Amino acid sequence: MICVIIRAQLGACMTLKLGIIGAGRIGRVHADTLTTRVAGATVWAIADIHAPSAQAAASEFGIPAHTDDPAALFELPELDAIAICSSTDTHTHFIKMAARAGKHIFCEKPIAHDLAEIDAALATVAAAGVQLQIGFNRRFDANHIRLKRAIDNGEIGAPQLLHIISRDPAPPPIEYIAVSGGLMMDMMIHDFDMCRFLLGEVVEVFAMGDCMVDPAIGADGDIDTAKVMLRFENGVIGSIENSRQAVYGYDQRVEVFGSQGAASSGNRHANAVTISDGGSVRRDLPMNFFMDRYRDSYAAEMAAFVAAIANDQPVPVNGDDGRAPVVMAKAGLRSLRENRPVRLAEIDGAKA
Amino acid sequence: MICVIIRAQLGACMTLKLGIIGAGRIGRVHADTLTTRVAGATVWAIADIHAPSAQAAASEFGIPAHTDDPAALFELPELDAIAICSSTDTHTHFIKMAARAGKHIFCEKPIAHDLAEIDAALATVAAAGVQLQIGFNRRFDANHIRLKRAIDNGEIGAPQLLHIISRDPAPPPIEYIAVSGGLMMDMMIHDFDMCRFLLGEVVEVFAMGDCMVDPAIGADGDIDTAKVMLRFENGVIGSIENSRQAVYGYDQRVEVFGSQGAASSGNRHANAVTISDGGSVRRDLPMNFFMDRYRDSYAAEMAAFVAAIANDQPVPVNGDDGRAPVVMAKAGLRSLRENRPVRLAEIDGAKA
Amino acid sequence: MICVIIRAQLGACMTLKLGIIGAGRIGRVHADTLTTRVAGATVWAIADIHAPSAQAAASEFGIPAHTDDPAALFELPELDAIAICSSTDTHTHFIKMAARAGKHIFCEKPIAHDLAEIDAALATVAAAGVQLQIGFNRRFDANHIRLKRAIDNGEIGAPQLLHIISRDPAPPPIEYIAVSGGLMMDMMIHDFDMCRFLLGEVVEVFAMGDCMVDPAIGADGDIDTAKVMLRFENGVIGSIENSRQAVYGYDQRVEVFGSQGAASSGNRHANAVTISDGGSVRRDLPMNFFMDRYRDSYAAEMAAFVAAIANDQPVPVNGDDGRAPVVMAKAGLRSLRENRPVRLAEIDGAKA
Amino acid sequence: MICVIIRAQLGACMTLKLGIIGAGRIGRVHADTLTTRVAGATVWAIADIHAPSAQAAASEFGIPAHTDDPAALFELPELDAIAICSSTDTHTHFIKMAARAGKHIFCEKPIAHDLAEIDAALATVAAAGVQLQIGFNRRFDANHIRLKRAIDNGEIGAPQLLHIISRDPAPPPIEYIAVSGGLMMDMMIHDFDMCRFLLGEVVEVFAMGDCMVDPAIGADGDIDTAKVMLRFENGVIGSIENSRQAVYGYDQRVEVFGSQGAASSGNRHANAVTISDGGSVRRDLPMNFFMDRYRDSYAAEMAAFVAAIANDQPVPVNGDDGRAPVVMAKAGLRSLRENRPVRLAEIDGAKA
Repeated sequence: MICVIIRAQLGACMTLKLGIIGAGRIGRVHADTLTTRVAGATVWAIADIHAPSAQAAASEFGIPAHTDDPAALFELPELDAIAICSSTDTHTHFIKMAARAGKHIFCEKPIAHDLAEIDAALATVAAAGVQLQIGFNRRFDANHIRLKRAIDNGEIGAPQLLHIISRDPAPPPIEYIAVSGGLMMDMMIHDFDMCRFLLGEVVEVFAMGDCMVDPAIGADGDIDTAKVMLRFENGVIGSIENSRQAVYGYDQRVEVFGSQGAASSGNRHANAVTISDGGSVRRDLPMNFFMDRYRDSYAAEMAAFVAAIANDQPVPVNGDDGRAPVVMAKAGLRSLRENRPVRLAEIDGAKA
Repeated sequence: MICVIIRAQLGACMTLKLGIIGAGRIGRVHADTLTTRVAGATVWAIADIHAPSAQAAASEFGIPAHTDDPAALFELPELDAIAICSSTDTHTHFIKMAARAGKHIFCEKPIAHDLAEIDAALATVAAAGVQLQIGFNRRFDANHIRLKRAIDNGEIGAPQLLHIISRDPAPPPIEYIAVSGGLMMDMMIHDFDMCRFLLGEVVEVFAMGDCMVDPAIGADGDIDTAKVMLRFENGVIGSIENSRQAVYGYDQRVEVFGSQGAASSGNRHANAVTISDGGSVRRDLPMNFFMDRYRDSYAAEMAAFVAAIANDQPVPVNGDDGRAPVVMAKAGLRSLRENRPVRLAEIDGAKA
Repeated sequence: MICVIIRAQLGACMTLKLGIIGAGRIGRVHADTLTTRVAGATVWAIADIHAPSAQAAASEFGIPAHTDDPAALFELPELDAIAICSSTDTHTHFIKMAARAGKHIFCEKPIAHDLAEIDAALATVAAAGVQLQIGFNRRFDANHIRLKRAIDNGEIGAPQLLHIISRDPAPPPIEYIAVSGGLMMDMMIHDFDMCRFLLGEVVEVFAMGDCMVDPAIGADGDIDTAKVMLRFENGVIGSIENSRQAVYGYDQRVEVFGSQGAASSGNRHANAVTISDGGSVRRDLPMNFFMDRYRDSYAAEMAAFVAAIANDQPVPVNGDDGRAPVVMAKAGLRSLRENRPVRLAEIDGAKA
Repeated sequence: MICVIIRAQLGACMTLKLGIIGAGRIGRVHADTLTTRVAGATVWAIADIHAPSAQAAASEFGIPAHTDDPAALFELPELDAIAICSSTDTHTHFIKMAARAGKHIFCEKPIAHDLAEIDAALATVAAAGVQLQIGFNRRFDANHIRLKRAIDNGEIGAPQLLHIISRDPAPPPIEYIAVSGGLMMDMMIHDFDMCRFLLGEVVEVFAMGDCMVDPAIGADGDIDTAKVMLRFENGVIGSIENSRQAVYGYDQRVEVFGSQGAASSGNRHANAVTISDGGSVRRDLPMNFFMDRYRDSYAAEMAAFVAAIANDQPVPVNGDDGRAPVVMAKAGLRSLRENRPVRLAEIDGAKA
């Protein structure tokens, strides 16, 4: 005798239904993750203003519905939540629409470049009583979690110094940079978030930066290489290094030094094989980019979002966590322009 | 407008349907892997003579059908393939039934302890014209694949020496050992396969072993600690170390030394964080056991099985690959008993 | 038949004779190095205003003559060179005396805290036509030399970013700090020199620092923890981290990142043994302090000094190399006071 | 006032005077070490039947006397001790002469290839009441000492498995191999000693070996690649790997596995710099050969010899320690010839 379980019935009562807006690179990462690696969630629909992208993603990931009209998602009563993976300039618009439609929201970073715009979106979210999680996926990475645990458990005593290295294997397309807000807003924003995740609030920033990788980036008014120094509320002195191009791959390391020791993270490699030959003792390059390096963290952040909504608990990275790094990026940009340390209070009247 | 894709229709023509026999530890690993990480496959039914185990697995992994009668699976016309994850003494029985039912077969290692029994099963498989893949998952691990590539690409010249370290974090239950065939047949069998995967056929084996971990294992006639030396057909001299208990976790390392260099694999760790304090410079223990360490390799072996069946290509680890390590284990056992090197031809009349 | 070689005669014509001023910690390091590890040199006399120190060092290292009057050394016609290892405030006085006596000079860092005083001493040296080498021993360390070679050979392309970590295991005595010029002048001065050794001249400095280790250091007006950012003439952006107290020992690491790669140095350990147990995978702490870590570099810097004098070649670290890091330290101190980036030209009228 | 110390007088009463027999590679290592790095010792004379070698060494290392007649050394009343660094076939002859002359003896390994010859020499030493230290320098290496400490301190619990990797960068001249006793007697003898140093006595040996590096070595009847398995009195199972040629340099690693953990030593490198570029993450090769890798251990073994003689304490590596590895090498050679495990008692009647 064979017993057949009607899975659809079981599933109906236990699964969070999501709609995804944006079927570009990061939208597809979340679609893949949600369909294969996150229990308790299903992607019910995907929208992209470029219809073929929506259709292709729907087909590839087995998503039942697709559309070229993102607004259509907000009208689907089945949807519990919306994941906003479209370009930054659309984020607050969709956040507000989703909030008004009573959908919980996952939104990619940064929320927006303008603080007033962010504040308006956050107010709408608050008024609607829905939850908003921001896509700072690195908080869910095993290395960074271990560092935080070392700090929180007192394994290194009182933190005193922080150094973050964050280098991409290659610059994004110039067109992307033109709208992304530049290095501080689209790349270092992750490191600003990491500062807060590990050690709390920052009060002052000093930045040096330049265009060393590609003159086209500089022609666009942006930098591609930067170092930033930060003073934390708790006295820690930090620094961040960014480069748009590390020829050896994605370089993601953090070191926290404290009164009783230091905790340092190394890069992750696809294998742990060492080759010794007549020339050197060598290993293969680290994982090439965030799709490999942070693959597990994307699954973990979505699992955390789904669990928070399902259990009616606060999401682990909320709207304020999305706003604060934008303030830091703005301070960094002003420091670059004026060649002086800039206090966050200068940027953020609210905190002044 | 929202387009709804009828996924079931699409899926029907592209998905391999599997039945799993055995809902114990390894059966559940494959059920999990097949349902979440292998594209193009679905688990249609699971059987276990312990009915609650089958039911629990079906529920957990969303498998539509479950039964306490493994034989029932062979009568399901929907099933393309059977994964045999039951105890070793049932393997050849189910292999033969599956072959006669025209199902492709994935079978866990070892096929059996008796060569005649293995040969009979392989003959049935051959006669039925189905494919049989043996569960030597380590061949699909990134470290071991990289080692093989180093060898095959000539990165280390002509191989001369091999050393395999393979230690479990803790011994299995005594009841398991009583039926498993012991250390050589249930544990070192993986390393015997690794020898063949990396460097080809072995001609002679010498073993030393003892009971150092748990007297109960020795009381049962088995050993828990062993070192084996092997001579390969191509002249390479190898060795394998096994221990049932490494207190620091799963220890899985291989080194191949050749005329132009050496390739060594290290253990895998869940994070790459180093803590320096007043006592030491340290990192967390390696991944604790095969469920973590070889998680990706289980997905890759199943993906390879599914792809081979779907594309009508030979499976990557066939029945002969399942038989050969059993011969090696038998030679090792005889060497242990007689304290002398034993040629594989002494065990395997067919090859004499 | 046994042939007896009269070594004294041979030696007389090939050995550089040195006098050492200062029999404290660093004077003893050089005495030890010169008597046991540097060929072609002999320590002929040692002076210390604390007579028992001079006598003890003479006895321990087999130095024929000792005195409590440093000035007496300048009158010994046998002496080819003087190594000045006394406290910083005596350096320029002895440099000028030695130069006027026609002795070549090795002087510990920093030359002095006052630029005018340094310039006067360097002028005297120039007028006398003797050579002056400054004790920036780290330039002779295998790690730092390898980094420089990686840069100079183009192994990492065009340098873009530099990060130096330099932490002592424990602070020096408060009395020492009171006269040393503080962290920037006695400790970071080595790192300022390392910047110039690896990547050339620096044009601007920004510093953050605080007293985190010992309030007594802060009470004295100094800091014990600092991070400095530097802009190089060639566009490289650098940073330096200093702490007076790393509980895990002497932490000396440098990373240079460039357009074609990165070169990173790790700490040196007295052994290369890893212990894995139930708690962690760990190794012993790095070498505890400069006496161990830089032992070989002290021998190499003295060998280089001796060789330069013997061969009438320029010394590898000259008076200008001694002056430049003092300018950098002064810029760093001003930056700390005024919380703004300071250009070296503000400090050094000569370069303005 | 300058006080002149008459160093010769002081030295005369506190310094051990040695004569060295053999001015070849190892004789020169000891001459260099004793003259520059060992306090309390002086090399008074050096002998080599090839007169120019003796003269050159005397000149280079400042040795007052040299001769082409080794026997002449035994008649020098000034000499406290003799270091025998000549070819193996002369060792026991010189040991006996030195003992009869009342000189303490340092002798390179192996003492001899013939056990009866060794026993006669040891008897003469015993009768003369002098001390004999054998040149197993690796016992004085920081890595090996740390491993032994890990074992002795219980850091890894009860030892169960041992693996020694010992590979030379290149084979010695064929003429050397012809008289050296071959791989087991001139190379693996160090590893046999390491077994005893770390874990005590061995009772049985099984060897596989072949000629894989240079056919000329095989033509000479020797092997250049070998793996040996050993059973210790305390139950530990060990293995040793030897190759005459590792293209990446001197490979010297040991791992001991026990009930509570494992201790592994890695190779030593001249620098700790890692280069990451577009191809790999790599570091320079390990130290190339024993002159670099074991440089410190040569100094330490001589310091220990000098201290033992000066303090009238037993030397740390005595005649029995020199004899035992010869027995092991003989067992290994017989095992190779007869392809079976050989008990040491079969070789050594005395122990049977």
